[in-house]
Amino acid sequence: MHAPLTIRMHAADNVAIVANDGGLAAGTVLADGLTLVDRVPQGHKVALRAISKDAAVLRYNVPIGFAMKDIAAGTWVHERLLHMPAARALHDLPQSTAPAWVDEPLTGYTFEGYRNADGSVGTRNILAITTTVQCVAGVVEFAVKRIKAELLPRFPHVDDVVGLEHSYGCGVAIDAPDAIIPIRTLRNISRNPNFGGEVMVVSLGCEKLQPERLLPPGSIALQSGEALDVVCLQSQSHVGFMSMVDSILASAQKHLERLNARRRETVPASELLVGVQCGGSDAFSGVTANPAVGFCTDLLVRAGATVLFSETTEVRDAVEQMTARATTPAVAQAMAREMAWYDAYLGRGQADRSANTTPGNKAGGLSNIVEKAMGSIIKSGTAPISAVLSPGEKANSKGLIYAATPASDFICGTLQLAAGMNMHVFTTGRGTPYGLAECPVIKVATRTELATRWHDLMDLNAGRIAEGKATIAEVGWELFHLLLAVASGEKKTWAEHWKLHNALVLFNPAPIT
Amino acid sequence: MHAPLTIRMHAADNVAIVANDGGLAAGTVLADGLTLVDRVPQGHKVALRAISKDAAVLRYNVPIGFAMKDIAAGTWVHERLLHMPAARALHDLPQSTAPAWVDEPLTGYTFEGYRNADGSVGTRNILAITTTVQCVAGVVEFAVKRIKAELLPRFPHVDDVVGLEHSYGCGVAIDAPDAIIPIRTLRNISRNPNFGGEVMVVSLGCEKLQPERLLPPGSIALQSGEALDVVCLQSQSHVGFMSMVDSILASAQKHLERLNARRRETVPASELLVGVQCGGSDAFSGVTANPAVGFCTDLLVRAGATVLFSETTEVRDAVEQMTARATTPAVAQAMAREMAWYDAYLGRGQADRSANTTPGNKAGGLSNIVEKAMGSIIKSGTAPISAVLSPGEKANSKGLIYAATPASDFICGTLQLAAGMNMHVFTTGRGTPYGLAECPVIKVATRTELATRWHDLMDLNAGRIAEGKATIAEVGWELFHLLLAVASGEKKTWAEHWKLHNALVLFNPAPIT
Repeated sequence: MHAPLTIRMHAADNVAIVANDGGLAAGTVLADGLTLVDRVPQGHKVALRAISKDAAVLRYNVPIGFAMKDIAAGTWVHERLLHMPAARALHDLPQSTAPAWVDEPLTGYTFEGYRNADGSVGTRNILAITTTVQCVAGVVEFAVKRIKAELLPRFPHVDDVVGLEHSYGCGVAIDAPDAIIPIRTLRNISRNPNFGGEVMVVSLGCEKLQPERLLPPGSIALQSGEALDVVCLQSQSHVGFMSMVDSILASAQKHLERLNARRRETVPASELLVGVQCGGSDAFSGVTANPAVGFCTDLLVRAGATVLFSETTEVRDAVEQMTARATTPAVAQAMAREMAWYDAYLGRGQADRSANTTPGNKAGGLSNIVEKAMGSIIKSGTAPISAVLSPGEKANSKGLIYAATPASDFICGTLQLAAGMNMHVFTTGRGTPYGLAECPVIKVATRTELATRWHDLMDLNAGRIAEGKATIAEVGWELFHLLLAVASGEKKTWAEHWKLHNALVLFNPAPIT
Repeated sequence: MHAPLTIRMHAADNVAIVANDGGLAAGTVLADGLTLVDRVPQGHKVALRAISKDAAVLRYNVPIGFAMKDIAAGTWVHERLLHMPAARALHDLPQSTAPAWVDEPLTGYTFEGYRNADGSVGTRNILAITTTVQCVAGVVEFAVKRIKAELLPRFPHVDDVVGLEHSYGCGVAIDAPDAIIPIRTLRNISRNPNFGGEVMVVSLGCEKLQPERLLPPGSIALQSGEALDVVCLQSQSHVGFMSMVDSILASAQKHLERLNARRRETVPASELLVGVQCGGSDAFSGVTANPAVGFCTDLLVRAGATVLFSETTEVRDAVEQMTARATTPAVAQAMAREMAWYDAYLGRGQADRSANTTPGNKAGGLSNIVEKAMGSIIKSGTAPISAVLSPGEKANSKGLIYAATPASDFICGTLQLAAGMNMHVFTTGRGTPYGLAECPVIKVATRTELATRWHDLMDLNAGRIAEGKATIAEVGWELFHLLLAVASGEKKTWAEHWKLHNALVLFNPAPIT
């Protein structure tokens, strides 16, 4: 058995987490002489000193809960011993009070990307087929199969063909106030930099989300003299099923020809637009993978790139840190506004932020959403937060951006695609085979055991940090270099290798009809 | 040009719809001598006599609106001339007041079906792979491709393998009151009669919707001595991606062997459980296809079968007819309860029943939801309504059932699958290539022009009714016979032929986290 290993995140903390695979048995003596009273599973917390009833349990120097009874030193501190603190009020938050960030520019890093007409850069060269409504999904799937078999082999510089299928577009209250969210999400996804500015639309004809409502004039740049390219299945010109499929193929061919003429060119690292996310988290997420991602986030921001961090319910309990780090009071106020909107949205459905945590989080040692939030926010590093996006909005500035999204992996990823993400970083402790067809996803494991067992699904092992085999900075730099290599197409992610693709899932807080 | 043809639904109506392809020009003289003042498009209404400002415009002998100004005889009566009536209050509805139905039993009709252990009957013999969460979708898709390529050819009596993928399972407020809807929907879909009682589950491991929450003990019948068959991707036994896929294949093989041993047997028509739905409706929906479906519904009920009609926002304006037709006051009260729930749900999102209608509906001549509702409810025929299902519930009685669902085609279809549907009838006026992998879908066109143009997508042409070439009863009987033939596997639908499959879309009125 390896020597007992515990990790304390801050000198003021009165708990530490057990790092050893399989946990530690009762009676184990830690390096500082403390003897465990209980068996403590891996990732779970041990009391480093006696904690009196009602006293704060501190991790990351933050009260993640209050003791429900006296807790002896060496005790397993699990969620059933903790009262969760109330959510931080949103009316008197600090605004832009954090000390100035020492922003040492990081220069000279580049990758090979596809430069688009609008100035953005793609990391892949993909033909995306925008759909207005689920009704067309079956036909689009049929057509995409034929495009891949009959056309794509003739266009070797095009990476893939993707039907942007979704459940929206009809049978929805499209004039309800919140309908703006799914509509702009779909609009902005069709403008993702990985699609090269080639927009083609398949529409049914009678749906609520008409093509001109999805993509009004001016929302996308068209080649001179061209109209929006729409294949309408109900068009009188379509006689029989295969004529619809043939129309889609004819349209695809035109766009494939243009995409195929493109070549990668050397662009600065500042053209990366990285969405960071965590899913299937455990207590190591906030100790290994997320801090390494945070280190990399700082590198990216120093290199002039854009980083999106998200997951409103997972950062709600870190709102005070976030508003303090806002570059301006207006940015801080925008964060508070997004959180207040989400509080109200959850309240309408008789839920609150505590609904976030999963059985797997708790099995992995995360007692509640406060503890999870402290581990989640670390992905944002230490840079100032310079902008806020509402769900489905597109980023139009560089630096560190809070893109307000639900924490649901697929909805968050879908909204980050809409924000213009050209690279995705996803950390996981419990393990998930997450992937997107629209953008490369680098998956970072929080534990060596997971990285070893899922050797052909995890792209980077941050678990070495817990073992003392690598520092946070070393793994952060590895991720930075891996981002550039994958962005350049020199390396593929495991999700790309296996073609593991999760569906687009829209955030539609408005009613279904 | 063909002779001018208009269709009036009730002797008291002061409007009729134009049946001619391409509509009728201003100046056209109708058979009764009326001269058209305006051009009236196909499916749109013409005033048969002068209608004063504020007077009711009657179709189906129901006020579908009130004139905003004086309307001369021969005028095109479009939605911009009509005030929509307020929604019927739900507190003083008639309860079971309709005259007794002359229920002449219809005997001797049978089909060849797969009898299940629970007494239900499948019309197809499909291996369904239940999933707890979207996280596993990529792996399940990969596995299903291998199962189809490597295993299915060895099991010729199995029709198909379907991964029941969906966007639920995690990142959702799973303890919110309304979460019961998506959870029971997924549970009941896994029990659909077309899956032969063979339930296998693929789970991630850390998700909120754990297998035992999705399928608690007793919810499905297991072979003696067997536990619920769950492949958990995070299980320690899975080393590497392909070991997960192999586990799914091994599990699938066991179920395929049992499914492959089954044979069709002759069963009475009473074993049909038919979900009826309309989508992409036009003014002919309520004139041709839906009345023919309603006639067939009566035949099915007389034969002892089960028919589900749904689409709450589309029958809300016919609630009075429905509660009058309820077999008991309790059934009437259950309908009013479902409508009140939906009114409140729409209101929370600042929408109402008028959000239902689409641009295509209006282009097709349906002025508003009241007119659409009168055409939609006709699918339910004339039989008494004997039960009400809340969204996602499973039918446990025969006869005509109101299964409360949204009108969204995919959500309605998904909920009807959960209710136990083994055959689906879908009428369309504008045209949609709708299909489900889980159940055969018979698509009925409302117009001959559509049936001709989409000759390899529409299974039955009810447009002949408008042309005077067939009666409602004749098309209703054709549909009845077609249901039996498709249920028996003697005929395939066009959606089956092309493998056009829309995704399952869950109704989740609870919040996302």
